[in-house]
Amino acid sequence: MSHDSWLFSKMATPDYTPFVFLLLLFQSGVWGVPVCQTPQESPTCGYKSCHATKPGMLNVHLVPHTHDDVGWLKTVDQYFYGDRNDIQHAGVQYILDSVVDQLLKNPDRRFIYVETAFFYRWWKQQTDDMQNTVKQLVNEGRLEFVNGGWCMSDEATTHYSAVIDQMTMGLRFLNDTFGHCGRPRVAWHIDPFGHAREHASMFAQMGYDGFFFGRLDYQDRNRRMVAREQEMLWRASESLTPPMADLFTGILPNGYNPPEGFCWDQSCDDPPIRDDPDLEDYNVDDVALVYKTNHIIMTMGSDFQYENANLWYKNLDKLIRYVNQMQSNGSEVNVLYSTPSCYLQELHRANLTWPLKGDDFFPYADSAHDFWTGYFTSRPALKRYERISNSYLQTCKQLEVLGGPISRKGPFGAGDSETLKKAMAVAQHHDAVSGTEKQHVANDYARKLANGWAHCQVLVSNTLSSLSGSSAPRVYCEHLNISVCPLTETSKKFSVNVYNPLARPVSWPVRLPVNGTAYSISDAKGKAVDSQVVPVSQATAAVRRGRGYAVNELLFQVQAPPLGYSTYSVSLLQNGPPSPPSPLPRFLRVTFDPETGLLSSLSNLETQQTVKLSQNFYWYNASDGNNSESIQMSGAYIFRPNTSTPFIISKTAKIETLQNSVVQEVRQWFSPWVSQVVRLYTDSRALELEWTVGPVPIGDDLGKEVISRLDSSINSSGVFYTDSNGREVLQRRKDYRPTWNLRQSEPIAGNYYPINSRAYIKDDKDQLTVVTDRSQGGGSIQDGSLEIMLHRRLLYDDVRGVGEPLNETSDIYPEGLVVRGRHLLSLSPPATAADTHRPLAQEVVLQPLITFTDGELHPSTRLEFSGLQAVLPPAVHLLTVSQWDQDTVLLRLEHQYQASEITHTLLSLGGDPSVWEVSLKPMEIRTFLLRVRQR
Amino acid sequence: MSHDSWLFSKMATPDYTPFVFLLLLFQSGVWGVPVCQTPQESPTCGYKSCHATKPGMLNVHLVPHTHDDVGWLKTVDQYFYGDRNDIQHAGVQYILDSVVDQLLKNPDRRFIYVETAFFYRWWKQQTDDMQNTVKQLVNEGRLEFVNGGWCMSDEATTHYSAVIDQMTMGLRFLNDTFGHCGRPRVAWHIDPFGHAREHASMFAQMGYDGFFFGRLDYQDRNRRMVAREQEMLWRASESLTPPMADLFTGILPNGYNPPEGFCWDQSCDDPPIRDDPDLEDYNVDDVALVYKTNHIIMTMGSDFQYENANLWYKNLDKLIRYVNQMQSNGSEVNVLYSTPSCYLQELHRANLTWPLKGDDFFPYADSAHDFWTGYFTSRPALKRYERISNSYLQTCKQLEVLGGPISRKGPFGAGDSETLKKAMAVAQHHDAVSGTEKQHVANDYARKLANGWAHCQVLVSNTLSSLSGSSAPRVYCEHLNISVCPLTETSKKFSVNVYNPLARPVSWPVRLPVNGTAYSISDAKGKAVDSQVVPVSQATAAVRRGRGYAVNELLFQVQAPPLGYSTYSVSLLQNGPPSPPSPLPRFLRVTFDPETGLLSSLSNLETQQTVKLSQNFYWYNASDGNNSESIQMSGAYIFRPNTSTPFIISKTAKIETLQNSVVQEVRQWFSPWVSQVVRLYTDSRALELEWTVGPVPIGDDLGKEVISRLDSSINSSGVFYTDSNGREVLQRRKDYRPTWNLRQSEPIAGNYYPINSRAYIKDDKDQLTVVTDRSQGGGSIQDGSLEIMLHRRLLYDDVRGVGEPLNETSDIYPEGLVVRGRHLLSLSPPATAADTHRPLAQEVVLQPLITFTDGELHPSTRLEFSGLQAVLPPAVHLLTVSQWDQDTVLLRLEHQYQASEITHTLLSLGGDPSVWEVSLKPMEIRTFLLRVRQR
Repeated sequence: MSHDSWLFSKMATPDYTPFVFLLLLFQSGVWGVPVCQTPQESPTCGYKSCHATKPGMLNVHLVPHTHDDVGWLKTVDQYFYGDRNDIQHAGVQYILDSVVDQLLKNPDRRFIYVETAFFYRWWKQQTDDMQNTVKQLVNEGRLEFVNGGWCMSDEATTHYSAVIDQMTMGLRFLNDTFGHCGRPRVAWHIDPFGHAREHASMFAQMGYDGFFFGRLDYQDRNRRMVAREQEMLWRASESLTPPMADLFTGILPNGYNPPEGFCWDQSCDDPPIRDDPDLEDYNVDDVALVYKTNHIIMTMGSDFQYENANLWYKNLDKLIRYVNQMQSNGSEVNVLYSTPSCYLQELHRANLTWPLKGDDFFPYADSAHDFWTGYFTSRPALKRYERISNSYLQTCKQLEVLGGPISRKGPFGAGDSETLKKAMAVAQHHDAVSGTEKQHVANDYARKLANGWAHCQVLVSNTLSSLSGSSAPRVYCEHLNISVCPLTETSKKFSVNVYNPLARPVSWPVRLPVNGTAYSISDAKGKAVDSQVVPVSQATAAVRRGRGYAVNELLFQVQAPPLGYSTYSVSLLQNGPPSPPSPLPRFLRVTFDPETGLLSSLSNLETQQTVKLSQNFYWYNASDGNNSESIQMSGAYIFRPNTSTPFIISKTAKIETLQNSVVQEVRQWFSPWVSQVVRLYTDSRALELEWTVGPVPIGDDLGKEVISRLDSSINSSGVFYTDSNGREVLQRRKDYRPTWNLRQSEPIAGNYYPINSRAYIKDDKDQLTVVTDRSQGGGSIQDGSLEIMLHRRLLYDDVRGVGEPLNETSDIYPEGLVVRGRHLLSLSPPATAADTHRPLAQEVVLQPLITFTDGELHPSTRLEFSGLQAVLPPAVHLLTVSQWDQDTVLLRLEHQYQASEITHTLLSLGGDPSVWEVSLKPMEIRTFLLRVRQR
Repeated sequence: MSHDSWLFSKMATPDYTPFVFLLLLFQSGVWGVPVCQTPQESPTCGYKSCHATKPGMLNVHLVPHTHDDVGWLKTVDQYFYGDRNDIQHAGVQYILDSVVDQLLKNPDRRFIYVETAFFYRWWKQQTDDMQNTVKQLVNEGRLEFVNGGWCMSDEATTHYSAVIDQMTMGLRFLNDTFGHCGRPRVAWHIDPFGHAREHASMFAQMGYDGFFFGRLDYQDRNRRMVAREQEMLWRASESLTPPMADLFTGILPNGYNPPEGFCWDQSCDDPPIRDDPDLEDYNVDDVALVYKTNHIIMTMGSDFQYENANLWYKNLDKLIRYVNQMQSNGSEVNVLYSTPSCYLQELHRANLTWPLKGDDFFPYADSAHDFWTGYFTSRPALKRYERISNSYLQTCKQLEVLGGPISRKGPFGAGDSETLKKAMAVAQHHDAVSGTEKQHVANDYARKLANGWAHCQVLVSNTLSSLSGSSAPRVYCEHLNISVCPLTETSKKFSVNVYNPLARPVSWPVRLPVNGTAYSISDAKGKAVDSQVVPVSQATAAVRRGRGYAVNELLFQVQAPPLGYSTYSVSLLQNGPPSPPSPLPRFLRVTFDPETGLLSSLSNLETQQTVKLSQNFYWYNASDGNNSESIQMSGAYIFRPNTSTPFIISKTAKIETLQNSVVQEVRQWFSPWVSQVVRLYTDSRALELEWTVGPVPIGDDLGKEVISRLDSSINSSGVFYTDSNGREVLQRRKDYRPTWNLRQSEPIAGNYYPINSRAYIKDDKDQLTVVTDRSQGGGSIQDGSLEIMLHRRLLYDDVRGVGEPLNETSDIYPEGLVVRGRHLLSLSPPATAADTHRPLAQEVVLQPLITFTDGELHPSTRLEFSGLQAVLPPAVHLLTVSQWDQDTVLLRLEHQYQASEITHTLLSLGGDPSVWEVSLKPMEIRTFLLRVRQR
């Protein structure tokens, strides 16, 4: 790693104890070096490469660009190669070929490239000559990377940890390949459908100089145009000390498209510039009026454009020549090739004060009844798969570090984390985890993730074999959530390895499908563990569809050490079930209405607080647009209920109850397609609501958007709270936006917000928090109420391009997808609620990895292991441990609390004081590279 | 002009007498130098630049190409610039940009370019650097021109003189620009809808080594595939001594498209080649089976493809690499970049004997009921305008030579023939004069021609001013055919200049719209000329639509010397009309049936022969496809009558007769939209039938295809004759094709053939010949009968791409176009018929140019002039006289008779024997460059 790296500016050599990390580094921002540092060897890239502007004139910055979705209507691979052009004409390999050719033809020309997933792939196929040519273009600032992540993340449905990972992958490639001049200086989210404050915060901490986007609420846009507030300073954290999370943010004038009549891509029909240019049609002054400086930016490009860049550049060359020629006749318009960073530089030079922005840009509406709040929930199964894949990837990366080289080549063959890293990175794209891609593309993302899992499983097996000293075959059961695991269903003796990716010990309930009625379980120290066998629920039996035949579930609680594992041995008992021990005291108490079978109250026994609480399932009838094109329908993007009152699925639930030393369960059956298990584990401070929804019936030709709604006695006063990308929490107020006077036109959809990991309502006394297992949309329409959308099945496309109704079926569920998930409820005093929901959400995001080996383990097997010498303090989250290169490990630590959630804001981690000390402020993330050596 | 010119191999310096040509040249073929001559300075272009093939293998010649219509759905300009891409995505400027770029990336790559109209335009916009780069590519054979004319002519509706002109323009540009290496070696007519023998003859005489095309009758194609006769030697003249008109001709395997699944243009959706090529889908052996050698050609391209050539070449590179890699596993397929000439070279090397072809490829049917015989007549007004524009252009070019430099810059300003040359050249395109373009494109061709006329009119005025010594303003009346001419309608004294572009004196009837009742006329020598005033017909009054108000027509006969003019003075007489002189004897006698008003017989008074002859108008009901997509409808391309019996418009005609010393007329009125004047001029050996058809009514929702049908007593025995491109005549036999057993499926449309200038029926005694004034379609369905389609008005598109029904209207004729034209009938003994129809057709093709000056001419005005010292022999036609460059004039002489039409086949033109002598055999065309100097 060279010293001009802008990913990590400084390094030192730490000690490395195998399996134990020591921190011995200088902190380096998140990725950043000081902005505008310009090393000697590349004097012309970056801001210095910008074309001169003319101070007295209106300067029009023409920014040639392409927007290359990392999957949408076609798969990533189809987009790269230009396959399936019958679906959409798009081939990224050709775009890059063509742009490079055209840049070489005129040194004035500029191009920005965004999506490293594609660029990387293209780069690998180039000859050395071509690579050198491209390096030259980058060094001269003619080809500039912006954003630079592996993809352009979705902002509403992603988790910050996966976003940081994908940005790191893209930026690292650019840094390794191009060094300083490859560094993106602006973040560029021109397409995502609303903008999360946490994204701005991350971008600020990554060292970007500015941020541009294209989509915001139409009312907000109009107000900002009038007020000339389309540029602002986004203060993107309430916890981080300014300017740590401050980011200049600009709104692009025409989404990310060229002005009307000026699209010269092969995909456009605008007339080319001929000998006799007729340019007075477009009055650039109109655009200039709504911006503050005498500079305006024009995005000359759009989706998958520049496949034949000659068309664009030939006409842009002429446009620039002809328009600037008119200056000799008194014109005061100056047109130039530019990039977002060059435009940004001019804005900085204007030395103005920008308005401050503190909230976010959700929800996004492009018209009065067109709220893009449906995709918060679209494709709930994919959203869940993406989330557990993130958990699995973090585990995989940790085990790659812990296992060393043997992890990648060991007794189980060649494994790697790269495959899953890449699959996860593309899954962050704003038409991936968002659920707004075509069905075949969604299938492809899932396939890619599954392939990543397979590669990681080899790695994990290798490492666990190395750490445990046992190379017994390791079995993975990916369908435990529906009680499917061939090994546990049939084996009389097996062991369960529980790996914990968190930096503190966890306790975790395990449910394994079995066909026996009693088992003896011992932990790593040989101590007996209490277990229970309960019958598999009817709902679970119904969704398995032949993938398993267990009649019972074996329940027991496991513990695992930080960054380590513990092993449990399970043996079938021939005699009947042991007499159940009497129930133990628990942290929560739940009551049900015996008439309805619904929840009726929730109490926290520690804090002695109780709220009335009922919960039920409803569905909104999705607007079908009345068969009229002028009426918006619900679709993959847009949520538009036909009426504001949802239909109840059943006023009552049939229930079964079940109670033993491990768990109390109430199994609720609402309809053939909606059921739920309400669970309270003995050790848990959260109530688990495991819902199962689907196949959503559509025989009545009505699209349905299914919600779970909690109604409580909490006096929430029109306010609720949602997290931003799984980190800081924002307040949401009904029919209200913090920065403009909202005219609410959609009483439900206009009050929906993304919930990535949690939402809560509170009053002075009580806070009811729901931790989700995936991103979902939700709102609080009535005081004391909190609804979360679980599943959507729609019969119409919503005319935003995807061209398919969101109507998921699969081979296994041909009559409609069934989705199962969990909501974890906690009740606390508001001041201390975070002490529960922060670690709880962490445990959901980074869940233990459970693996199995059949039969008796060899006595020499190491049954327990921890990669940490000491447990980290509760506020410190070990965000990332990942092999960086052969002798370097990437480590990210974060303070997982907001300033308002704790009393002590500065936190120090100290080891041997002469060696290392790390300070973390609330919500701070710090990144380190550890030089490691085996000892 | 350098000595390696392949357009004219040798030159000498002739004497030049102003206004008098002396021929003093070596003959040089038509354009040719000996085939395969390879000068020293460019060793790698031409056949030497071909990639090596592998003798033991099947060699697949991949020929990257684009087919760029010089107008069709868009205008020429729109195609060049890529304008109106909403109609069709196509921009030729970008194609050439892109192909050159891509050729530079890999020296193995090849490209052929065809349409010089586009190439020329692109070339002009290139920098010197780019021009040098392209020259290098041409010199290395990487970019090869094929065909190379200004456009790819239509073959069914063009006249050979205009075709030769447009080919000359394109080839000259290539020769001037690239020299030897720019020479096209193959003719390439991949799209025209049937192939004329005269085209093959011209190509052979131009020195092409071979000819490739894509379209032929499906039955013919099938037979040839079975018999392996897709390659042949076309002996394209019955008169020229072999091998003068012999041309190797090959039929392309898939039209001009790539094999299915192998289209990698941006306009195609075929999957690109990915890492794992799946090439077994396409079995090249299937194609090889139907060809004779172990070489097959694959046309890798199509309409307007290669705008983004990278897509094509990137995948072709991979295809070649992967397929040839398989040779190491025993594959016997060898794939290579190639060109038609390289493929041709391999066919020659195979040293096989090819089957001989003597007839032509008309009509073209692509299925049993899909005969492309409608376009023979489509857009009859455009076809006529194109034909008279050719006449006007020949005159313009002659007067440019005769006038010298003053013609281009003289008292009337700057004039030129270039504009009309180019307009005529693009009008030869197979979607131009063919009538198969969209309406707006047809309008554009007409606009271009009109613009060419305007430029020529200045030139003509300058020259006539110079030759006559009078710079009196010269007035052009372009609507004399409908008796519109503001000057003659109002002037009391004016002069009429009649310029004769033929090399022999002509006598010509003139009809001028006037409002007086008597005029005195004197010729250039002051001698009185007999004239008559007759009332304008009602039909003419009806079609003028306010463009003129003459009540009478002034008729008189004019004479003009060869390549010269004569001037007539016209003065209004105040007193009444002079008593008409008694009718003079005429050459023909015509009788009419007094009951029906129709023609009943025609007699040649010189030869004492008489035939029964009636004539009437009918219409076929155009198939509307029965609203089914499987049933072919009539359209711009295809003629498909619903029934084989045409509907009669009227069994009887109302008639008026008129007889005087100049003309006898019978004016026939058949319906509000069909009328005719049958005229017999005193001096004429032909009977003129001036028909007026339109607006064709469509209130009954029936498309109509209107014919004029002659029914005679001639025993034609199922045979009739049509000319090929205005030159040699081919025999046509009903329900028969000379080279295969026809299964006739369309009794009318399948018996239609193009008539470019004449058609005839005959028996032992009598030949009835019709000379047309434009290209039309026609047939002889019954013995003794000859029908010619005049006008078509259709309500459906015929699904061959044009996407519009042929339903012509205009501002002046909003209710439907009215078309007027002439058929000239002659009756002769078969053996001497050509003595009449050859010169007659010549006079129709090259008609006198009539210009006017108002008032009295200055006494010094030179009233008569001839550019020839001597009249050429009757068999010799002066095809072209045109300024070549500053001191060179292009001269083309032709023998205008077929061998079968004359007794003496060798014709010598001798002047001073020491200076020049030219020999011409029947149907031979010889080209000369005269170095001239003013004396």
